[in-house]
Amino acid sequence: MMQVPILLDRRARVPLHRQIYDRWREGILSGRFAAGTRVPSTRDLAAMLSVARATVTTAYDQLTAEGYLESAHGSGTFVSRALPDQPATRIRVAADPEHPPRVRLSRFAARLEAAYSRPDPDHATATIDLSKHSPDVDQFPLRAWRRLILRHVKAIASPGWDAADRGAGHEGLRREIAAYVRRARAVRCEPSQVVVVNGSQQALDLCARVLIDAGDVAAIEDPCYPGARQLFAAHGARLHPVPVERDGIAVSRLPERARLVFVTPSHQLPTGVSMSLAKRLALLAWARERGVVVIEDDYDSEYRYGGEPVPALQGLSDAASVVYVGTFSNVMFPGLRIGYLVAPPALVEPITSARWHADRRSAVLEQAALADFLREGHFERHVRRMRRLYGRRRDVLTSALTEVLGDEVSISCDGVGMFVVVRFSSERVAARARRQGVRLNSTARYYLGEAPPHEYVLRFSGVGERTLREGVRRLAAVR
Amino acid sequence: MMQVPILLDRRARVPLHRQIYDRWREGILSGRFAAGTRVPSTRDLAAMLSVARATVTTAYDQLTAEGYLESAHGSGTFVSRALPDQPATRIRVAADPEHPPRVRLSRFAARLEAAYSRPDPDHATATIDLSKHSPDVDQFPLRAWRRLILRHVKAIASPGWDAADRGAGHEGLRREIAAYVRRARAVRCEPSQVVVVNGSQQALDLCARVLIDAGDVAAIEDPCYPGARQLFAAHGARLHPVPVERDGIAVSRLPERARLVFVTPSHQLPTGVSMSLAKRLALLAWARERGVVVIEDDYDSEYRYGGEPVPALQGLSDAASVVYVGTFSNVMFPGLRIGYLVAPPALVEPITSARWHADRRSAVLEQAALADFLREGHFERHVRRMRRLYGRRRDVLTSALTEVLGDEVSISCDGVGMFVVVRFSSERVAARARRQGVRLNSTARYYLGEAPPHEYVLRFSGVGERTLREGVRRLAAVR
Repeated sequence: MMQVPILLDRRARVPLHRQIYDRWREGILSGRFAAGTRVPSTRDLAAMLSVARATVTTAYDQLTAEGYLESAHGSGTFVSRALPDQPATRIRVAADPEHPPRVRLSRFAARLEAAYSRPDPDHATATIDLSKHSPDVDQFPLRAWRRLILRHVKAIASPGWDAADRGAGHEGLRREIAAYVRRARAVRCEPSQVVVVNGSQQALDLCARVLIDAGDVAAIEDPCYPGARQLFAAHGARLHPVPVERDGIAVSRLPERARLVFVTPSHQLPTGVSMSLAKRLALLAWARERGVVVIEDDYDSEYRYGGEPVPALQGLSDAASVVYVGTFSNVMFPGLRIGYLVAPPALVEPITSARWHADRRSAVLEQAALADFLREGHFERHVRRMRRLYGRRRDVLTSALTEVLGDEVSISCDGVGMFVVVRFSSERVAARARRQGVRLNSTARYYLGEAPPHEYVLRFSGVGERTLREGVRRLAAVR
Repeated sequence: MMQVPILLDRRARVPLHRQIYDRWREGILSGRFAAGTRVPSTRDLAAMLSVARATVTTAYDQLTAEGYLESAHGSGTFVSRALPDQPATRIRVAADPEHPPRVRLSRFAARLEAAYSRPDPDHATATIDLSKHSPDVDQFPLRAWRRLILRHVKAIASPGWDAADRGAGHEGLRREIAAYVRRARAVRCEPSQVVVVNGSQQALDLCARVLIDAGDVAAIEDPCYPGARQLFAAHGARLHPVPVERDGIAVSRLPERARLVFVTPSHQLPTGVSMSLAKRLALLAWARERGVVVIEDDYDSEYRYGGEPVPALQGLSDAASVVYVGTFSNVMFPGLRIGYLVAPPALVEPITSARWHADRRSAVLEQAALADFLREGHFERHVRRMRRLYGRRRDVLTSALTEVLGDEVSISCDGVGMFVVVRFSSERVAARARRQGVRLNSTARYYLGEAPPHEYVLRFSGVGERTLREGVRRLAAVR
């Protein structure tokens, strides 16, 4: 019989049977106890360790169940004979922290690594943040939302919660989304064309999956939201950047062939321009002739301060294939991971199937609550309230900029959305911002081509009027 | 001046200015009103239609803002000259429902379509469902969950909700998951290796993204969960099926080269076997030698009715690369879209980056509530309660089967998990089930190779004891 160097710690929180189990397991895996070695009987080991025999029996039962030990009827218990003889093939021994296992990554991972320009680290000293794309979460009608969450928290743990989902999303929410985008955005669709996703990023990813093969051309606006550009590049698309003019993408400079074109007609990020009707029609005609899918990210479309928002591109199109992409996080709160896409009928099945295999479905509780939030009118009421609030903040920001900076700033005033674009006369203004703890978002990382100098996106939606004034005041040359 | 055939419906819920807008928009898009045509003044049109002039002005302002009309100072308002001349390039006209735009799909979409064997349609007549993989949601501690949801519903709409996420998940939840899998599954990990995902399917998808290029070999168990097999196939993997023996995957029949191997060591679906220790070690040695990543889906591991669950494969490995995949939906309720993976250090960055570009993050509210649910011990208490309940149900099911069907059934009794596997002596038993409204899940669609005849997975976890007895009674030859 072997010597059994088992030390028990009677004051530890780990039960004694577990300690016995752990010591045996380690001894066997390390190769110290060879396969086929006889181990002490439960009675003998209990005596050696001064513990109850049942304690040892519990440990042995578990070790036997897991294949470390085996008992031969009548002749005792042994280290399992089925274990590899060579300690080298018992894994832990072979561990070598200096040489972790080599893993070859996919081309997708390599392309993503190459394309992914990580955002600047936070300015730890920034006390006023004009860089964050966020609604004013303090204004969110939290009581109504809380009530709806409570209404549904019970239902998600009931049978039937997943009725008719299969990758497309909560049935009631799809109906409400279809009604909302028809009403508010003049999108032409049936509920069957709506796919609920985890925010607009997933909509883009699903489009890329079902449309892009490595080497295909994806036309993008330049400048363009990096999250979209990086994603298409990771999927192997050859990016064809198209300049953005005063009235939107330069249609005459679109490529001869492409699989998709990605546009943000309502409020282009970061230029802030809206695409003109003439360009919308020309873009759709170009796409239709070539069988190109247009992805319309209706980013930042809810707020137009001088009237109704301009309707979606999608609503102009009967004959071109447009995937319309929207999100609720920009209006409600960013922790809500629910967006949607409206697919042309031919793409509904491929996209829902890709979604089903990617991650099944979005969080059910929020989907159910959001359906009611839309149906009961909370969403559109909130949009109307925020339009007034953000309109004032926008005015405060732009007049303060003009007043404080004078000739040092020019502002692109488009009357839409949750940000304005400014160009400073020199890098001095941004340098003062850094020194004074005001965080600004340069447009440089949006451009593939050369970025205009000293250009910044200023986001005002999540910042109160007083803070906006103070932030601008800090940009002044002399204080 | 043109004739303006605008008919207003004064009893409609659509405001009059909107009706005027809609009619003009349609007329212009259809090409009926050519570019450059002068339109009536607001005063004239208001008189023609007998509406207030402000109503027409509102409509004209919107039409002008959207680019349908333009006004030349002093000379009136015109259909925008920038619009394409040819009605053919105005999109709606070109619509041809007989010939929807052709869209070429990606190879991913084509492969998915080829691989995706849709599940059988529901038996509309089934009144007893033994096919559904679901916990008993009636037993879920809904009051505790509801309290935690309420605790956090406010926090999600506050700044800072997204601290340190960047694709990896809620920081507190990652800590709790790391502590849980160390404690309950003997997984060796730090919180930094945990990535929160939307259920285990997303974990598999992320692994496929960062590991598989088209043509790479993915070794899978045969039989295997179709959702995994189809996904790897869609990513372009060449599937290498490896038979499952009584003690797990046939290690000697693994391929010479592969990028990954997908296994379910705790409770293989649908055979129900657990992988022996000897095979676990041999599998890890095989993988380590070749740099193959092992994906361990720790599916259905929580319940072992005769003792502690067998620890995870991952905990045996220092030197091989194992991605450990787990989910909470199987224990809590399926509408909860939260799972996790534990990645080897070298894969953490590629996987979180792929996650960030796929869909950013999981629902924040449930992540925060789940962190507390784990921390306060609710989860493990629930597992313990369910282990007793499901253990009884399992006994009820298996003894009823033996009693009622006798020689017509053989049952694989493994003492683990939320299902048992049975083989009937002929197809007659399943035919009786169909006739009597009892839904069973054939194992046929799990097999790539030939499936054993008359084999079924019976799921008992979501079905009460009385219903289990009644379901089995209906399988009897003579009633």
